[in-house]
Amino acid sequence: MRLVVIGGVAAGLSAAARAKRLDPSMEVLVLEKGEHISYSACGLPYLLEGQVRDWLQLVGFTPERFLLEKNVSVRGGAEVAAIAHSRRQLTLLSGEKLHYDKLVIATGARARCPDTCLPLHTLADGVRLWEHLREAPPSRALVIGAGYIGLELAGALRARGWRVTLVDRNEHLLHREDPELTAILRRQLERHGVELMLAYDGPAPEAPLTVHATGLQPNTLLAESAGVELGHTGAIRVTEHMETNLPGIFAAGDCAETVHRVTGAPVWLPLGTTANKMGRIAGANAAGRRERFPGVVGASIVRVCGLGVALSGLSAAHARKAGFNPAAVRIRSRDRASYFRGRPVTVELVADKSTGRLLGGSVLGEYGVEGRVNVISTALQARMTVEDFLGLDLVYAPPYAPVMDSLLVAAQQLAKEL
Amino acid sequence: MRLVVIGGVAAGLSAAARAKRLDPSMEVLVLEKGEHISYSACGLPYLLEGQVRDWLQLVGFTPERFLLEKNVSVRGGAEVAAIAHSRRQLTLLSGEKLHYDKLVIATGARARCPDTCLPLHTLADGVRLWEHLREAPPSRALVIGAGYIGLELAGALRARGWRVTLVDRNEHLLHREDPELTAILRRQLERHGVELMLAYDGPAPEAPLTVHATGLQPNTLLAESAGVELGHTGAIRVTEHMETNLPGIFAAGDCAETVHRVTGAPVWLPLGTTANKMGRIAGANAAGRRERFPGVVGASIVRVCGLGVALSGLSAAHARKAGFNPAAVRIRSRDRASYFRGRPVTVELVADKSTGRLLGGSVLGEYGVEGRVNVISTALQARMTVEDFLGLDLVYAPPYAPVMDSLLVAAQQLAKEL
Repeated sequence: MRLVVIGGVAAGLSAAARAKRLDPSMEVLVLEKGEHISYSACGLPYLLEGQVRDWLQLVGFTPERFLLEKNVSVRGGAEVAAIAHSRRQLTLLSGEKLHYDKLVIATGARARCPDTCLPLHTLADGVRLWEHLREAPPSRALVIGAGYIGLELAGALRARGWRVTLVDRNEHLLHREDPELTAILRRQLERHGVELMLAYDGPAPEAPLTVHATGLQPNTLLAESAGVELGHTGAIRVTEHMETNLPGIFAAGDCAETVHRVTGAPVWLPLGTTANKMGRIAGANAAGRRERFPGVVGASIVRVCGLGVALSGLSAAHARKAGFNPAAVRIRSRDRASYFRGRPVTVELVADKSTGRLLGGSVLGEYGVEGRVNVISTALQARMTVEDFLGLDLVYAPPYAPVMDSLLVAAQQLAKEL
Repeated sequence: MRLVVIGGVAAGLSAAARAKRLDPSMEVLVLEKGEHISYSACGLPYLLEGQVRDWLQLVGFTPERFLLEKNVSVRGGAEVAAIAHSRRQLTLLSGEKLHYDKLVIATGARARCPDTCLPLHTLADGVRLWEHLREAPPSRALVIGAGYIGLELAGALRARGWRVTLVDRNEHLLHREDPELTAILRRQLERHGVELMLAYDGPAPEAPLTVHATGLQPNTLLAESAGVELGHTGAIRVTEHMETNLPGIFAAGDCAETVHRVTGAPVWLPLGTTANKMGRIAGANAAGRRERFPGVVGASIVRVCGLGVALSGLSAAHARKAGFNPAAVRIRSRDRASYFRGRPVTVELVADKSTGRLLGGSVLGEYGVEGRVNVISTALQARMTVEDFLGLDLVYAPPYAPVMDSLLVAAQQLAKEL
């Protein structure tokens, strides 16, 4: 029995390692078209900023170490040109043909920008930009796209002394239809010297350095040409078992869609941690298990010039579009006891007026942001109401939290609106 | 309509402020036997350590400011000697008699040690010790009791240069029957120069300074003498509406018991944040609402010589005693991406083998401990199984978390044991 995995970054390697661990008798082969495997693309902004010393630190495994530790072969520079599923055969770009019994497609996503643009998506993109920054003296840079990569990149370039302009056609930052969030982030960016051009529709201004962070699109061409169906999001449609419409072919990671657990609708949210989890499930099921991936609540976190910005679930605007009747509050509180270095934290919570169900929230601050948004995500997964949420037993001690956590202060406020 | 609240620290003031806010026509009076109101006892170890400059920083409200901001009168030095509930009348120690329509008992807890001992419970205890430490040159100190106050105190005295011995009759630290936890904490304390004498049954050794942190007991005498019933825990029995057995008398905070949401049994867990929440509910219901306090999952956090130690739910030993069939794992992982200052974190999870239900956990580390234990607590409240927990959508970005959060690594390990 041979499992072939197409793609050797997050989902692909998770799938391969897990399948081999669960069924050591299986032959598992990973094909990666690029030069590097197992790297953290999410670390690239921190490489550019100088927080990470060398790009080698972003690489988890070399093929040699993956073979040694996981007993799985990885071939770099091996691009698959075609899948003939009826014959269970792959053809590489080199012409070489390979048999498989089970297949996991983990072809990821690619930057959505012209071929001539400079994106920040792959390790190669990051290293190229990193080398450029080490040689070029700071000057003026244009970052196109105000999603989370654009914001991280703008902060990284500022930290290196560049004059940075962030441009987006959209009027909202982070693509979250939330004017207050955009206003807070705008203040944070401007305070750190990042110029903003939002709702900008003209041609991109000229600058010595222009980096595109204009979003991603799933790499689905290979899958499509083999007869694998896509969903409405444009990514590969999979069951909760990570199976495609073709028996024996699984898909996982940034090339596949999943379910949003708040709306119940399919969603494409390419994130590293989700890719890893989907990969684990795909690998397990390719090895004969029957595990399920339950979907996501749309949780993410990004650092914007030192400010932690974490989102989960739906904004009020998104909730309205999804058919809910939302109420929302946003409060300012402190992350810890005020006599113990307590700093401001902003918490937003959104709930459905008709049912009291919590629908989403956001947390902004310097400390404890990831923990608070994870509580919101856990509550969303459990379909808690605001009343349930109000009853949460959150820890208190001066070095860690205030006596009444900002999450509960926000929930108390929201309860009055319901 | 007059509401009298006995006790002016956490639960009492929360009750008074909330009642007044919900029903401004109500006359609300708080009686506090001590000199100070509204102080953070949890901040006392940090005052002693020197992290908090002055004890005045630990005081939230003076009676004057509470009157001004909350429109509630607080009388300090007013100790209630008796409650004649049939006449709705209180008698103060001074002999003065006061009428009430509704009563909230928030008499708190007191240190369980001989009258001659030096405890660390009230603000007055803390200030006395603080003044002593400012005058006395560092020498040898004995801390009796290895609960969370004893551990914080030992760390605070060490930080001031004292030679500290921590003594407890019990063999476990933090009273958690968990040998591995005790071993980790023992190493942490010893590494910071705290000597330990556990399972020690002899007379307390002599030392120039001896502080008792031998636990608390609820202040129930006044309530009992008025005919208020206690529960099996020894604290005042209340309904989920914070009502005692006597109509019109509510109780809240450290003098009252509540329900443990994992075992379903009554429990007495005196903690500041719980006291505040119980007080809010008692106040709302005294003002004619019908709100409920759902209980606690037993979450707490303490800093032990810089190490964050957070517990929630049941240990394996506790789970066994409560009639579960527990499986437990403890894993070591990293709190953030290893290339981004990632430091060790230890996560323990306990689940019931028969049902897969999560029963408890603990998190130890330097960063992100409070957020991770809050996720466990939220999952406990939602009665999640380990499989549910495995599906959590926790945020990832290098400055905040590793790609696979330590909580999920632990849950993956635990799933194999079920």
